[in-house]
Amino acid sequence: MSTTQTAQTTDAFKPGLEGVIAAETRLSSVDGQKGELIIAGFPLEELAAHATFEETAYLLWYDHLPTAAELERFRAELAGYRALPAATLTLLEQVAQVRRPAMDALRIAAGAMDLDARDLDDHGLARLALARIPTIVAAYWRLLHGQAPVEPDPELGHAANYLYMLEGARPTPAKVRGLETYLNTVSDHGLNASTFAARVIIATQSDLVSALVGAIGALKGPLHGGAPGPALDMVFEIGDVSRAESYLREKLERGERLMGFGHRVYKVRDPRAEVLARAAEVMYRDGGDMALYNLAREVEKIAVALLAEYKPGRNLQTNVEFYTALLLHGLGLDTDLFTPTFAVGRTAGWIGHCFEQRATGRLIRPDSRYIGERNRRWVPLEQR
Amino acid sequence: MSTTQTAQTTDAFKPGLEGVIAAETRLSSVDGQKGELIIAGFPLEELAAHATFEETAYLLWYDHLPTAAELERFRAELAGYRALPAATLTLLEQVAQVRRPAMDALRIAAGAMDLDARDLDDHGLARLALARIPTIVAAYWRLLHGQAPVEPDPELGHAANYLYMLEGARPTPAKVRGLETYLNTVSDHGLNASTFAARVIIATQSDLVSALVGAIGALKGPLHGGAPGPALDMVFEIGDVSRAESYLREKLERGERLMGFGHRVYKVRDPRAEVLARAAEVMYRDGGDMALYNLAREVEKIAVALLAEYKPGRNLQTNVEFYTALLLHGLGLDTDLFTPTFAVGRTAGWIGHCFEQRATGRLIRPDSRYIGERNRRWVPLEQR
Repeated sequence: MSTTQTAQTTDAFKPGLEGVIAAETRLSSVDGQKGELIIAGFPLEELAAHATFEETAYLLWYDHLPTAAELERFRAELAGYRALPAATLTLLEQVAQVRRPAMDALRIAAGAMDLDARDLDDHGLARLALARIPTIVAAYWRLLHGQAPVEPDPELGHAANYLYMLEGARPTPAKVRGLETYLNTVSDHGLNASTFAARVIIATQSDLVSALVGAIGALKGPLHGGAPGPALDMVFEIGDVSRAESYLREKLERGERLMGFGHRVYKVRDPRAEVLARAAEVMYRDGGDMALYNLAREVEKIAVALLAEYKPGRNLQTNVEFYTALLLHGLGLDTDLFTPTFAVGRTAGWIGHCFEQRATGRLIRPDSRYIGERNRRWVPLEQR
Repeated sequence: MSTTQTAQTTDAFKPGLEGVIAAETRLSSVDGQKGELIIAGFPLEELAAHATFEETAYLLWYDHLPTAAELERFRAELAGYRALPAATLTLLEQVAQVRRPAMDALRIAAGAMDLDARDLDDHGLARLALARIPTIVAAYWRLLHGQAPVEPDPELGHAANYLYMLEGARPTPAKVRGLETYLNTVSDHGLNASTFAARVIIATQSDLVSALVGAIGALKGPLHGGAPGPALDMVFEIGDVSRAESYLREKLERGERLMGFGHRVYKVRDPRAEVLARAAEVMYRDGGDMALYNLAREVEKIAVALLAEYKPGRNLQTNVEFYTALLLHGLGLDTDLFTPTFAVGRTAGWIGHCFEQRATGRLIRPDSRYIGERNRRWVPLEQR
């Protein structure tokens, strides 16, 4: 009987592949029960606020923190790749003319980001892609708003240069640190749908750019879980802490969901929320205006308390969206830039997963179960 | 104990997801033991040589053969979408300047194929994509060879127009029938890696173009199994049937693989091989030169016999690559167009799978198993 059971389990339809382990990885570990996220061996809290994004990417790809010499070389290589080929810029201009959303533009232009590349191996293409994805996002954003793209500044680090290309002015160190922490925090997160798409594509021994374009296409989808805008909209609507409880109670009484709370995987507080909350606090404090930050924290406290009251036993906690929105807003980013900026960070993880999958040499090819008819007979057109 | 076993089975790492059922589908059924392929309820042999490609695509998407009125409308809709937006053509010109392979160009331009689209639903985008992918392939092929793209001819059917756009001349009815049969034969084939990539992407509720671009990126990979070129190269090298046995024996003695024989799934003769062999025969007969066709069939017979002698018990039979190469060569297609032409046919299946996956409303998100370190501590740069 146990044989039959095993066979049944193997042959059972696994909708959404829930509970199926499709990869072994040393890139990150997500423990939703414990509220624990490990990035390349580091507890998130240990890594996120210390590392520059270049260090995190290097760590994900090569499994150790770079030495000073390695980091210097890695930064120089990335900085050298930042500028886009002319054809990619022309393409972005044409996409901007039809005003497509930034994630569409990113997917389209990323597909053409290596047109000037000659004989790059995976590691060369990885540097090119990591370097150019922020350039695409920033150039498109400016084109969409009638501004000329800003040339990348090779003297700036990855995070600082992204803000510089968006705004045309050098960001404050506090903002750079805030963005580094955000990018580190979202750099990898197990086998989410976009990462899995990248692994499925690279597993055919296709090229890295194909895998990244597939991942960006998956990240675009609303079910991927990247919708931090609404969480902050709620805070803005509340406006003053005195209105928070009545606003939130009304929403809950109407049976509406509170955006920014609860997570499919994390059953306790999302470890990313605390890291981002602290980064946001430092950044808002440096900016000299704590009003929005303080309001958000008060709203959070009241929301969590009310959720415990209205949804007992569910333990709905603040998720990553809530503080992502607060942090990115504090960086001066428009809501429409939130998901593209997520992509800027996650690219490091996507590439790390591609390296891992490539090393297995193995195709990812599950089965399907046929539920259609059989033995249909051809009917000539005139008899249909 | 059986509970533990079930749990272990669920939690076991499934490299390549082999044996895991990730989708239910009514699009196709692949039975490798029986050598049986069902396309939307029809045994392949019943459908492939009868249907136009438009009928097959309609059948895959809507689960019935179109009536005369439905087919007329569907053909007109497809024909209306064939021409590429100016931006997509400009992009192809730029890709041709750096002489990227045709599959790269297809992936890049497919990402930008809907830049002129406004408010199309999935069914509108599906028609646009099915119509434009052959236009991209043909336009790129001509640009790559210094020729101006040929405008699509709305009076021609899908297959005929593809050949017309490649060659600039209307193809013979026998060639059109040969291509229709090929496109039908490869229109769907279970949950292959490119189809699975498309499903993973659309499952996030992303758009159809994102899913198709991901699928094209996966199809590019050598492990996907689309390499029909070498099978025909062998026939050319043999040149005359009198040399076949000694050539093949030498290859087998050296332990080399015979390209065009054996398949991961099909343990008996690949049902697609016979369908394509017949289509090729009709086409070569119409062309008035049976020499290559006859040579290929003789080589096949000798190869299968020698494989039985050298690899007893393996039952290595002719696979789809062998007659794909013969058929596409007979159509006048260069080897470098084989995989892009495969994509022209498989697009119908990719889109059908996207419709199915979309209807489930479900994210595809397997788990990963963490095998990295834990509790690494931050080391400042100067101490590394």
